[in-house]
Formats: sequence, C-alpha cells, structure tokens
Amino acid sequence: MPSEFELIARFVRAFPGCSPSVLAGPGDDCAITRPRPGRVLVSKVDQVVAGVHFGPAFRPEEIGHKALAAALSDLAAAGAKPRWFLVAVAHPPELPPEFLDGVARGMARLARSAKVDLVGGNFSRARELSLAVTALGEARPDQVLGRSGARPGDWLLVSGTLGDAALGLRRLAAGRPARPDPFVRAQLAPEPRVALGEILGRYARAAIDISDGFLQDLGHLCARSRVGADVRLDELPIRPAVRRAGVELALAGGEDYEILCAAPPERAQALLRACRRRGWPMSRIGEIRAGEGIRLLDARGEEVPLPARRGWEHFA
Amino acid sequence: MPSEFELIARFVRAFPGCSPSVLAGPGDDCAITRPRPGRVLVSKVDQVVAGVHFGPAFRPEEIGHKALAAALSDLAAAGAKPRWFLVAVAHPPELPPEFLDGVARGMARLARSAKVDLVGGNFSRARELSLAVTALGEARPDQVLGRSGARPGDWLLVSGTLGDAALGLRRLAAGRPARPDPFVRAQLAPEPRVALGEILGRYARAAIDISDGFLQDLGHLCARSRVGADVRLDELPIRPAVRRAGVELALAGGEDYEILCAAPPERAQALLRACRRRGWPMSRIGEIRAGEGIRLLDARGEEVPLPARRGWEHFA
Repeated sequence: MPSEFELIARFVRAFPGCSPSVLAGPGDDCAITRPRPGRVLVSKVDQVVAGVHFGPAFRPEEIGHKALAAALSDLAAAGAKPRWFLVAVAHPPELPPEFLDGVARGMARLARSAKVDLVGGNFSRARELSLAVTALGEARPDQVLGRSGARPGDWLLVSGTLGDAALGLRRLAAGRPARPDPFVRAQLAPEPRVALGEILGRYARAAIDISDGFLQDLGHLCARSRVGADVRLDELPIRPAVRRAGVELALAGGEDYEILCAAPPERAQALLRACRRRGWPMSRIGEIRAGEGIRLLDARGEEVPLPARRGWEHFA
Repeated sequence: MPSEFELIARFVRAFPGCSPSVLAGPGDDCAITRPRPGRVLVSKVDQVVAGVHFGPAFRPEEIGHKALAAALSDLAAAGAKPRWFLVAVAHPPELPPEFLDGVARGMARLARSAKVDLVGGNFSRARELSLAVTALGEARPDQVLGRSGARPGDWLLVSGTLGDAALGLRRLAAGRPARPDPFVRAQLAPEPRVALGEILGRYARAAIDISDGFLQDLGHLCARSRVGADVRLDELPIRPAVRRAGVELALAGGEDYEILCAAPPERAQALLRACRRRGWPMSRIGEIRAGEGIRLLDARGEEVPLPARRGWEHFA
C-alpha cells in the first residue's frame, strides 16, 4: 500500500489552492491561518465512523461530503462563517487508495461550495474507516449564537423539511436505488445551511442544528435557555411522504442538517422575509414560553403526547 | 452503557474551568473562543489509535496524555502558544466508562500544565479506541515557524535526548515494568516542549518536531527549506543506554517529542543560553548547508552511511 506521505499527497490533490488567509496548510506540520480582526473563533469537531454514521450504501464521495457537512452544519447554527478545516482519517490498510480519492473528492466539492479551506490533516491505520473533521469559523462577537439565549415570546423557526434523511435511511435498508430520490439524497449527501448561518446572527437569539433529532435538539435549546416551547404539529415542515411513513421520523429521526432558531417576533419576521427573498425554506413552527419542557399542539391547540424516542442516540 | 450525553459529562468533569478566552465550551454545539489580536492561528490535528500508537501496556491516563502531547508538540515546533483543543473520542461500547475517566484525567493533567483549555469534543462508537486531538494555538505573525526558512550556515539544534522513546518501546515488549524507567516513561508519557515553543520564534528560522524519527523529520525540514544538513554523530544528545542498544534508535526510532530547529549562529547561541538559564536541554548538532540531503559525520569529519530506515512509517 502507499506510504502515509503518498496518501496525504493524493488526498490533498483534490483540494487545489487555498484562500489568502492560509499562510501554511497541508504539507507543513501545523496550519497557520490569519483570523479576521474583531471576530471570535468558532470551532467544532465531528466524527463519522463506518457502520455507525455511514453504511455500505454510501459512495466514497458521500462519506467525505457527510463528514464535512456535519461539522459545517454546527458552525452554521452558531451563526459563523466557516473558514478552515482539518481532518483526521483513520482507515484499514487494505482500503484501496482509490476509495480515499473518492472521499477527498466529495469533501473537496463541499469545501469549494462552502468556501472553506482544508488546512491540515492526519492519516492513521485503523480497523475501520473514520473521519474526524474539525471545522473552524468566525463570527462577530455580538452575533455568535449558542443554545442559550431564547426568551419567552420568541418565535421558533426551522429551515428545510424534517424527517427526509430518516425516511431516506429507511429506504436505503432495501439497498441503494439506481436513482436516489430526494429522501435518499438527504441521507447520503445532506446540504449544510452554510449561507443561512452567515446571516443568522443578525436575527436569532439562540440556535441549534437538529441533526440529533428535532425534539431532542429543541430540548437542548430549551434546557440551556431555561425556557419551554410550544410546537404546532401542523406547522412543522414535513413532506407528505414523511407524514405517511410516520410523523415520528420528522420529530425524532435525526440527521436533518437543518437549523432551529429562536428570535423575537420582529426579527423572526425579518428572517423569514430574508429567507424567502433568497429562496431558502424557513418555517415558523411555534413559540418559546416560560417554564420548561416541550408541548406538541394539534390544529385545535390540544396537546399531543410526545413520542418516547426523541432523537438519535449514538450509543443506543 | 451510559448515553453519549452522560459520557460527555463524565469526560468534561476532569477539566474544571476554562480561561476567560473561552466564551462557550464543552456542552454547547460549538466552541467560541476569543483570539488575541494581532496573532495568527496555528492548528494541528493528530490521532492515536489502539494497536497503532498505543498498546496494552498503556494506562488510560497515558493514552489521554499522549494523544494531547502529540498535537501540542507540533504546536511547539511552530513557535505557537497553545490555547485550546478539541477531541473526537471513538471507542468500543464495551469499554468501561472508568477507562474513559482515566483517559480524561491524563489529558486534563497535561492540559493544565500546558495551560490549554478543552473547548469541544465528540463521542462515537467504534471497534477500537481512538482519540483525534485538534490543538489550536497562537503566534506572532513574524515569529511563527514552519519547515521552510532554514538557510546555509544556520546551526542545527535539538532539544532533549534522542531515542529514549524507542528504547522504551523495546523494553515494553517484555511487559510493563513495575517501576517504569526514564526510557519507558518517554514512551508512555512524553512531555511536549510547550514552554520552549513559546520562546522559539524569537530565535529560530525553521523548526519541526521529530516524533516521526530524527532523520526523517530533518529530511522534511531540508526538503522544504531546499537545503542540506551536516549532522555530527558524536554531538547528538544520546544517552549511553541508547548508544549501547543501537544508535539507529536515536536516528530513526521515532516518538521523541523533541524540537529540531535551525537558527543563524548568533541567535542559535542566544537560544542555547536561554535554554541553559531555564534548565532545558538543548544541543547544537550540526549545520545547514547549501545543496540537498543529510550527511552524517563522525568525530574526524568523515561521512558515515545513513541507516536504510529513517523514521517511523505509520503504514509500514
């Protein structure tokens, strides 16, 4: 098999050029990058492991894409502009180098569209393929977002549609279709809301990415903000095929790389308008209230019981 | 087994408090940190995998220590002050939580002494234990170091002693001794040269950490600087036990978390004095010269053949 240095050189070839902010990148011991003055640094590590986060239905390009997408989605929820990333690749020695070329290509394509530079990495032997991506971004100190900060009266908004990736996973159980439908694609190659993240801090007070499951992540946001939430079931953006397959896919299915945020009504309305202008799907789904816990309400305002499972538990 | 959230809470408990530069840390989706104005960001990801970078002789504390030490050593070679780090932990579900507590403790002890804050992490299931550490540091733009920049006439200096960890690894093959000697300790719990890294940029022009093997890493420095090097074998800081076991342990054994640097003579002398004042071992071992390649010279200035193996090849 190729040496570590050959593998690095092959991998890096998929990433031609870096922005001027990169003073030293792959090939040096450390990455050296120039931060924008007056910004805070926003960082996130995420890891995908064979058999846990991706299965045999995934093409190498999709594995690379998804590994980076997961980290970028969290940066977007923090209202950060992604700048740079590092990746630790662990792989079985018998994995063909062409497979890793595909991983690099998928990662590079997303990196290009998100305008983020690969600046460092590490290769190691292991029994199974895994990719740990550390994404680094920047935000204005007064616009950076976390789970805390939501207040009673804030509107709850969510991007995109819920449950698509979970339905896609279910469909993949029968094998990869010749032409993946939008649900299967949402599972194989989710698009992180990078552009939304770059404007989110102007409007929202708190935000979270809902990749662990809508209810679970809303629960985190409420707990850290010390508030409760009312969610109107019929306002949730759920495609008919997902509703038919079971609304719990939308509530708790996980792997929707969408952004849930809380904003005071006027700024929430402005955010909805800003998204509409850009053609980005964004829905008002409920309100933050005093107290604690999540209430699911039907069209008549009656409370609906919460499902027992609220999200994706990596160790379940 | 505990849930992912319980594991995170347990792990983080070993790291009490953060510096004021950390606006959001473990427990939020992203870490938010405040850079020092006028500095460049220096980042590095390193990964240790069970069976590749550590074996059954390692205690959990030593695994955590070594994972962080490896990344901090590269930051030191870049002349950076380490500030923050993130860690992706992948582990078999059957690994006892107490084992991970030990990993966290070992990592936290080194983090405290290096004054670096854990700001983010990720837990995932996997077939074998691995830790991917991303270390983030800062340096003055005019003092940050890389592999390039060495010039003919520069002195070559190296910290510490060479081959200790390789001899320790050989001794560990017979099982972990009841009381590890300095060589075994150099293998199990190497001390990265963090404090040296924080002053290095004032003196050196180029530097590299020699954890992949002295000759191999010197080769990288020469190649990137487009220079050659003369190394005087009898000036290399090698303990008698290592010389007896074989000088190739020092030349190519790897896992010495020491810093090799090149500096013009006056600044090299000043660095040697600065190290002596602080009690840090630092030796002059040779010179950079025009041309390419490494020449090993004996006491009479005669060239000695280079060993066939120059370092640690992760995939060999």
